[in-house]
Amino acid sequence: MPEFRQNLATKEWVIVAWERAKRPHDFQKDSELPKELPPLREDCPFCPGNESKTPPAVFSISARNVSDWSVRVVPNKFAALNPNLSTKREQRGKFLRADGFGIAEVIIETPLHNLTIATMDAEQVQKILLTYKQRYLEVAQSKNINLITIFRNFGVRAGTSLEHPHSQLIATPIIPPHVRDPFQQAMYYYDSQGSCVYCDMVNEELEQKERIVLESKHFVAACPFASRTPFETRIWPKRHTPAYGQISEAEVADLAYVLKTVLAKIRIGLNAPHYNYVIRSAPIGDEDTRYLHWYMVIIPKITTPAGFEIGTGIYINVVPPEQAAKYLREVEVK
Amino acid sequence: MPEFRQNLATKEWVIVAWERAKRPHDFQKDSELPKELPPLREDCPFCPGNESKTPPAVFSISARNVSDWSVRVVPNKFAALNPNLSTKREQRGKFLRADGFGIAEVIIETPLHNLTIATMDAEQVQKILLTYKQRYLEVAQSKNINLITIFRNFGVRAGTSLEHPHSQLIATPIIPPHVRDPFQQAMYYYDSQGSCVYCDMVNEELEQKERIVLESKHFVAACPFASRTPFETRIWPKRHTPAYGQISEAEVADLAYVLKTVLAKIRIGLNAPHYNYVIRSAPIGDEDTRYLHWYMVIIPKITTPAGFEIGTGIYINVVPPEQAAKYLREVEVK
Repeated sequence: MPEFRQNLATKEWVIVAWERAKRPHDFQKDSELPKELPPLREDCPFCPGNESKTPPAVFSISARNVSDWSVRVVPNKFAALNPNLSTKREQRGKFLRADGFGIAEVIIETPLHNLTIATMDAEQVQKILLTYKQRYLEVAQSKNINLITIFRNFGVRAGTSLEHPHSQLIATPIIPPHVRDPFQQAMYYYDSQGSCVYCDMVNEELEQKERIVLESKHFVAACPFASRTPFETRIWPKRHTPAYGQISEAEVADLAYVLKTVLAKIRIGLNAPHYNYVIRSAPIGDEDTRYLHWYMVIIPKITTPAGFEIGTGIYINVVPPEQAAKYLREVEVK
Repeated sequence: MPEFRQNLATKEWVIVAWERAKRPHDFQKDSELPKELPPLREDCPFCPGNESKTPPAVFSISARNVSDWSVRVVPNKFAALNPNLSTKREQRGKFLRADGFGIAEVIIETPLHNLTIATMDAEQVQKILLTYKQRYLEVAQSKNINLITIFRNFGVRAGTSLEHPHSQLIATPIIPPHVRDPFQQAMYYYDSQGSCVYCDMVNEELEQKERIVLESKHFVAACPFASRTPFETRIWPKRHTPAYGQISEAEVADLAYVLKTVLAKIRIGLNAPHYNYVIRSAPIGDEDTRYLHWYMVIIPKITTPAGFEIGTGIYINVVPPEQAAKYLREVEVK
């Protein structure tokens, strides 16, 4: 029997298609990325030795000297936004526009061309997550920035053809409806229930247990009740923290383990699917709010949204999250 | 210089990436569908002679006898929703769920396996659009249906592997935030401006001219000011009509010409890209509202949304709609 389920926080609905459900094994297929990449590619702008092919680094973690970096952050050479513009809204007739002010950075996650977070050691993942925090805190100081989004695109189906392991940060002067609407819902929830809807969601997932993939000291990873797509996995901090910049050192170390493990389970269990992950974080200036709660969402790109999803925003999920979570729980990671 | 633009109706923002802009010609590439399909496939459940492979038709347009149909509507055999269920919302702990009540139909657009709307004659397209109206009006009578979405998926990248020309109708008891939020925005707009935001949007596009693809007696086709993706094209009725079921006979005939021509321009100009189209229509019971306005949106699937789009809902459009519209205007259709 098909089932509608509502996301407690955003009020969005999904359809869990129990009848059309595919078994998790159906999604094992060959990755479109080459299985074996070289550790270094001379023509890769992110590989060591090619530092001059990117704009100068704005941040790096280096052991001894600058060329011996382990994580390196550079402005995005092909940025969609530009930090030297005005944020002034202007009318064009009845329509509203603004120059494309914003900050876009690339986090080069490792010197090694052939790694990915699932295959790195936890120490390296920890450096990446610390770099996210450093950049978050630095960029949050910039005048006129209202929202910082950190994300990773892995593979062509996730929107990148660049092989070298990297994430991105884009900071905008705009808080879009996609962020504002759930914020508003979270406020209504707080006014009626007296608690953070995300804290309640995490506790409810822990209570119901069957969709948990992994629980650590500080984090919960689960395929949420109203997952929009097969194997969608969220990683929530247990502590009420609205913004990623508030992550503690102990939490960074713990998240490195959780993120690496979840991505390794997806990689092994589903044969290295392309994926996106995003860190959703409160707007700048709302970091102390009682309503919001940062989290990561990992979306393997193994199904294609069609006209119904575009028209209604109601996703038809052909892998019930209980089955997805059970499958991922059972994938063994060395 | 990159530019933020806001959708007047939904308040969603896009980034028009003028610097990264691709020329329309860059999107000409081979379709993933076979160039030449046979007019009839014995193994196709939608081809004439195989009527027993689908559930019995709920509607058809036939010249002489039932087997001589030109359009045929059947319940979706692999429906995501089921008409024989309850609509009762239930708590599962703190989470909300309901049985998957709903109606899902397939509109088989022609007996010929190798046609598509871009290549049909206008008379056949008119029959399809009339069928949409018939089914809309019939399904709208069903108890507990609150929203009817009619859409077409063309090609694997648009979410279908079924070659035979078909569209779909899905009716739900749910009005999701994706529909409700723009509805609410349209009410606020009406309260402040005293007019339908969609009427204003159409008039503003007509005024600014440069994004118009085609104007007919009753319709305007344009790549809108805040297009999310390259060559996104909307077809709006000029007359204020909230629901598709209100389309007049003269409008159906006119829309057949406009839809067929726009899809032919996309097919010829962009080399038969996969696409979705959706008819967005007011909720059932709100058909007389002064705030809403039905329209069609056609979305060629030629770029891939990535982490930034997922995180913020802000789409980065690499073809400015002015360039897309100019290109489509100039594509000649026989």
